[in-house]
Amino acid sequence: MSEELRGALIIGQSGGPTSVINASAYGVIRTALDADCITKVYGAHYGIKGVLEDQLFDMDEEDREELDKLMYTPSSALGSCRYKMKDPDEDETDYKRILEIFQKYDVRYFCYNGGNDSMDTCNKISKYMKKVGYECRVMGVPKTIDNDLYGTDHCPGFASSAKYIATSIMEVAHDTVVYDTGMVTIIECMGRHAGWLTAAAALANAAERNCDLIYLPERDFDMEKFVADVTKVYEEKHNCIVAVSEGIHYADGSFVSEAKTSGTDGFGHAQLGGLAAMLASIIKDRLGVKTRGIELSLLQRAGAHVASGTDISESFAAGKAAVEAMLDGETDHMVGFECERSEEMGYDWEDKGEYVCHTKLFPLSDVANYEKHVPDEWINEEGNDILGGFIDYAMPLIQGETPMKKKNGLPDFAKLKKVLA
Amino acid sequence: MSEELRGALIIGQSGGPTSVINASAYGVIRTALDADCITKVYGAHYGIKGVLEDQLFDMDEEDREELDKLMYTPSSALGSCRYKMKDPDEDETDYKRILEIFQKYDVRYFCYNGGNDSMDTCNKISKYMKKVGYECRVMGVPKTIDNDLYGTDHCPGFASSAKYIATSIMEVAHDTVVYDTGMVTIIECMGRHAGWLTAAAALANAAERNCDLIYLPERDFDMEKFVADVTKVYEEKHNCIVAVSEGIHYADGSFVSEAKTSGTDGFGHAQLGGLAAMLASIIKDRLGVKTRGIELSLLQRAGAHVASGTDISESFAAGKAAVEAMLDGETDHMVGFECERSEEMGYDWEDKGEYVCHTKLFPLSDVANYEKHVPDEWINEEGNDILGGFIDYAMPLIQGETPMKKKNGLPDFAKLKKVLA
Repeated sequence: MSEELRGALIIGQSGGPTSVINASAYGVIRTALDADCITKVYGAHYGIKGVLEDQLFDMDEEDREELDKLMYTPSSALGSCRYKMKDPDEDETDYKRILEIFQKYDVRYFCYNGGNDSMDTCNKISKYMKKVGYECRVMGVPKTIDNDLYGTDHCPGFASSAKYIATSIMEVAHDTVVYDTGMVTIIECMGRHAGWLTAAAALANAAERNCDLIYLPERDFDMEKFVADVTKVYEEKHNCIVAVSEGIHYADGSFVSEAKTSGTDGFGHAQLGGLAAMLASIIKDRLGVKTRGIELSLLQRAGAHVASGTDISESFAAGKAAVEAMLDGETDHMVGFECERSEEMGYDWEDKGEYVCHTKLFPLSDVANYEKHVPDEWINEEGNDILGGFIDYAMPLIQGETPMKKKNGLPDFAKLKKVLA
Repeated sequence: MSEELRGALIIGQSGGPTSVINASAYGVIRTALDADCITKVYGAHYGIKGVLEDQLFDMDEEDREELDKLMYTPSSALGSCRYKMKDPDEDETDYKRILEIFQKYDVRYFCYNGGNDSMDTCNKISKYMKKVGYECRVMGVPKTIDNDLYGTDHCPGFASSAKYIATSIMEVAHDTVVYDTGMVTIIECMGRHAGWLTAAAALANAAERNCDLIYLPERDFDMEKFVADVTKVYEEKHNCIVAVSEGIHYADGSFVSEAKTSGTDGFGHAQLGGLAAMLASIIKDRLGVKTRGIELSLLQRAGAHVASGTDISESFAAGKAAVEAMLDGETDHMVGFECERSEEMGYDWEDKGEYVCHTKLFPLSDVANYEKHVPDEWINEEGNDILGGFIDYAMPLIQGETPMKKKNGLPDFAKLKKVLA
C-alpha cells in the first residue's frame, strides 16, 4: 500500500456511448463512494467539458437504488463530449483551468471513461499535473464498441454490441427465408477503421449458417468481387445475408459509402440512406433480385436490453479496478483485460470452453494513439468471411444476460438527480 | 359437443412474419397432436402454395423439444407466401387442387395463420368446401404486426413489435442526448395504412418523454407543419425524437416516401434510404442541425428476443382455441380476442391496471376485407402525438418477457426436420 491520499474524485465519460459504459462509471462511483480517503465523488457533465465549465454533479446526492440501475442503463449517464485537448506545449489554457477546478474541489483522483481520444486526454492531464507538481492520480477506464484499444484483450462495450448484432442477424435471417421468392439482405455495422463489430456477424452462424458474407475494413473492397460473391451464394441458397462494415473502402482508400459508382450501375447521385441501401440497390440492379439494406445504426450501441452479462460485469470490474489501483498509488494507466480462453472451441464454446478474465494496467502513453485491428489470420483469404480464431476470441465475451429490471414491461433505466456541486 | 369428425389437419402460415406467429402455429400443432380424432398433423410449406404443390410436412415426425421452441422462434417456421386466391366463380383451378389434396390426405381440419389476405383465403376455401359438400372445418388464426384486423381487440404479433419499438426508442433516446450538440432523430416504423405500430412509440414515454412527435397515416402529413413541429421541440429541448409511419401521406394521398420535395430543399432525386433518411435530410437542410434517420426495418417484426410474454401466451392460446373450436364443430371463423382492461391507467398500468383476455370467434366473412385504423380520438388534434386512450389500450399487451432459451449466449431457435408427407 502506498501512502494514503485524501481528496475528491472526478469521473468523466467521453466519446460515443455504449450500452455498458455506465456500468464502468458505476464501478468507479460505487468503489469511490465506499472508499474512506475519497472525500467526495463528482461526475463531470459532458466529460472534460464539465470540468472546464465547472459543471460537476455531486454523486453523494444520488439515491443508491438509482445508481444501481446504471449497471444496465445504456449511453453515457453523465453526458459525453468529443473535445480534443490541445498539446499543453502549444496552449496551456485548458490545463490551467482544469488545475484550477481540481484545486477548487480538492480533486486528487481523476478517472476518464472512454476510447482512444479519451486515453489521450487522460494522458495529457496526467503529464501536466505531474509537471506542475499537483498530486493527482489519473486512470483511464476503457469503453468502445469499436474494440480497437491497444493492449487490452478486448474493450468494455464491444461484446454487448456484438451480441446485439449476432442476435439481430439470427432473427433477420429467419425473416428473410419465409418466402420462396429469395432475398439478398445487406446489414451495415459500425466500425470506421476496425472491423471487430462486423466480424461479430459470424457469431450468428453458431447454430446454422445465417450470415453468408462478411466484409471488414481490414481488407480492400472490390465491387465486382462483391457482386460475384453474392451471385454465387444466391445461386446456391436462393437467399443471401451480407454483413458490411461502414468503413469498407476501395484499394485507393476511398470509402465505398462515399464513392459514386460507375454509370453502368445507373447510380451516380449523393447517398442518403447509407452504405447498406447503396449496396442493396447495386445488387438489385445487377442480379434483379429482391434486396433489403438494414443499417443497425444507434440501435447496436444502445441495445442494453440484449447486453452481454459478461460485458456488464467486466465493465463494472474495470471501473472498480481503476479506483482500487489509484488508492494503491497507481497513476497514468488505463485498466484493461488479460484473458485466458480455451482454443478451437468455436461454436461449441458453451459446452466445453473455459474463460478467465483479469484486469491489468497499461501505461496511458502506450494506449493513447494506436488502433487495434482484426488480425489478418482471422479473416479468410478471399476477404469475405471470418475464421475460427475470432469465434474462439469472441464467444466467451457475449455470454450471460443483462440484470435489467423492467417497469411496465419496459426497461427501468436510472434517473439521476444530477445535483450540481 | 358436436359429432366427432376424424381426419387430418393442415396448418399453413401466410403473409409477413412476426416474432410470435410460430407460437400460434404451435398452439394449433400441439393441440392437434394431442387430439384423438385428429389423425395426422401437417404443416404446409409456404402457406397455401404448399397445399397446391403437395408439399406438406409431417408434424408427428418432429421432436417435442424442438416444437416447444416455436414458442419463441420468430418468423414463419413453415414458410409463408403472399398468394392471392382467385374468386372461385371465375377460376376454380386452385380450389379443385386443394380439394384433391384434402381428399388425398383425408384433411378435415384446416387452419390458416395470417392477416387480412389470409382470412380471405380461409373464407374462400371454407365456402368452396361447403359448396362441393366436402366436410372440412376451417378456422383462421390471426397474426399481423399491423394490428389492423376487424373485430378482435388486437392481433397476435402487434404487441411484440410494439414492445420492440418502445424499448428501442427508449434506448436510442438515451444515446441521442449524450452530447451537448443537439440532435434530431427520425425513426421509421412499419404500417402502410394503419398507424398502430408507430403509435407504440408513445409507450416509450412511460418513464420520461423520449418520443416528442408521432405521425400516423391516419392523418394527412404536411411537410411545413412537420418542420415547424420539429423546430419548436428542438428550440425547447435542443433535441428531438420523431416517430413516423412508413405510410404517412400528403392530403392528395401520395406517400411522403415516394414524393419528390420541392427544389428549395435541394432534394429532387430518387430515394434509396427510405423515409427516415429523407426526412432527416430535409430537417438538416432546413434547421442546420445534426440529424439521424433510423429505419427499424425487419428488426421490428423479427425481434423475438424482446417479444411480449403476454403476446406469446395469447398467440398460443389463439392457435389452441382454433383447434378446440373445430373439434366442437365450429367452422368458417377467425379466432380473435375480447378484452377487459381498466381505463385511465396510462403509464401507471403496472401498479394499478387490470386486464383479462378471452378468445372469441368472428365470422370470416366479416373479417376478410376490412382494415382497422387507430381511432381518431386517440390522436391529438395537431396530429403529432398519441393520447391516453391508446396507452390504456396497449400497455397491458406489452407486459411480460419471452421464455426464450439461449445457447452460447444467443437465441436457441427451433430447428424443424421438415419431413415431407
